[in-house]
Amino acid sequence: MITETHGLRLYDYAASANCFKVRLLLAQLRQPYDRVPIDIFAGDTLTDDFHAKNPARSTPVLQIGESTYLSESNAILFFLAQGTPFLPDEPLLRAEVVRWLIFEQTDVMMTVGGLRFRLVTGRLRPDDPDAIRRRNAGEEALELLDQHVRARRFLAGDRYSIADIAVYGYTHVAPEAGFELSRYPAVEAWLRAVEEQPHFVNDLAPYPENARPGAGRSIYD
Amino acid sequence: MITETHGLRLYDYAASANCFKVRLLLAQLRQPYDRVPIDIFAGDTLTDDFHAKNPARSTPVLQIGESTYLSESNAILFFLAQGTPFLPDEPLLRAEVVRWLIFEQTDVMMTVGGLRFRLVTGRLRPDDPDAIRRRNAGEEALELLDQHVRARRFLAGDRYSIADIAVYGYTHVAPEAGFELSRYPAVEAWLRAVEEQPHFVNDLAPYPENARPGAGRSIYD
Repeated sequence: MITETHGLRLYDYAASANCFKVRLLLAQLRQPYDRVPIDIFAGDTLTDDFHAKNPARSTPVLQIGESTYLSESNAILFFLAQGTPFLPDEPLLRAEVVRWLIFEQTDVMMTVGGLRFRLVTGRLRPDDPDAIRRRNAGEEALELLDQHVRARRFLAGDRYSIADIAVYGYTHVAPEAGFELSRYPAVEAWLRAVEEQPHFVNDLAPYPENARPGAGRSIYD
Repeated sequence: MITETHGLRLYDYAASANCFKVRLLLAQLRQPYDRVPIDIFAGDTLTDDFHAKNPARSTPVLQIGESTYLSESNAILFFLAQGTPFLPDEPLLRAEVVRWLIFEQTDVMMTVGGLRFRLVTGRLRPDDPDAIRRRNAGEEALELLDQHVRARRFLAGDRYSIADIAVYGYTHVAPEAGFELSRYPAVEAWLRAVEEQPHFVNDLAPYPENARPGAGRSIYD
C-alpha cells in the first residue's frame, strides 16, 4: 500500500504483541519506517501529546505523513496490507480476514493475551476468578482455532495473510500464560507455518520490571 | 456487493443487536434475503447442524449460495458493504472503518451490550463486580465515542458507513443498561443522524422470557 511518498512512523512498545504484529508485517513488506518507543508503564501514553494521537491511549499508533494517525493494531495491519499479497482482493476472502481480525481481539487478545499480561506482571494469580474466566475462554478460542486449521494451512483462503499475523501475535506466547499448546497440534503446526514465511521476524520483548503493578504509571494502574 | 445471482440467507435472532446490525444494512441496501430464525435460548445454536455452519455457535451467520457461511456480525457487514457507498474505497478511510468494527466488538458490545444482556435477563445485578467493571468500561467507550463525534457527523470520513451501523447496534440501547446518554450529547446527536438515514429500520426485539437463566438452554448456561 504505502510507498516512499509517505513517511511512516510507528509509536510502539517492544513488549506488546499488538505492536509486534505491526512490526512483523512491516518487516515482511520490506517497508521502511521510523520507530518511536513508547514506554507504556513509564506513563508515555498518559500525556496530552499521546492523547492527541490516540484518545484511547493504546499502542500501536501509526503516523502516516505529517498529521494522520491510525490506531487499533489490526486496523493498521489492514491499512498496510491493502494492495499487497497479505490481504486478498476477493470479497469473501477479504471479509474472512476481517472476521479473524475481530476474533483475535475479542477471543484471543482479551483471553490468552490478557491472562499472560496479568500473570507475568503479577496482577493475577492462576486461581483468581478473573484468571480462571480468561483461561476457560482462551481454551475455547484455541480449540476453535485448532478445528479451523486442522483442514487448512492458513486462516483465510489457504494463503498467508494479515489474519495469520494478527492471530499469531498472542497465540505463540500462550504457553507463558499456562496454556498447553500440545493439546492443539494443528495450532502448533500452523504457528510453525507462520514462522517459515519469508522475512519472518520475532522481536517481541519480555515485559520489563516497571510493568509490575506499582512500579510504573500506566492505564493499568 | 451481492446481486441476484447469489441466494442470501441470514441465520438470525430477533433480540440480538449483532443480528439487527446486519438486518439494518440489508434493509438500507434494499437487498432481498431469507431470514431463518434461530432461538438462541431454545438451544438452536447448540445443535450439530448449527456447529457445521458456525463452530463458534454465535449469531448472525450469513449463508451465501449453497454452502458458504460467514460468521461474525461485523465481517458480514464488511462483506455486504464492499462495492457500495456503505464502505469507502479510499484505503485510509477503509482502515478507519475496520478500526471502528473492532472497537465496537471489544469496547461497546462486550461492555454496554454485555451489561444490558446480563441486567435485563437477570444474570447480574447492578452492584455485582462484573456489572461495575462493564459499566466503567462502557462509560469509557461512550466518552471516547462522544469525543470523536463532537467534531464529526459520522464515525469514518464524515459519511455514513457500516462503522456507524456497527456502533449504533448496542449504543442506542445503552439506557437499558443504565447508561445516561444525556451525559454524551454528541453521541445522542449522532444516534439521531443514523436514524435519519434513508431506509433506516429498527426491528430489534426485546429479550423474550426464555432468555432468563434456567428458562432455556444456550451457550450462556
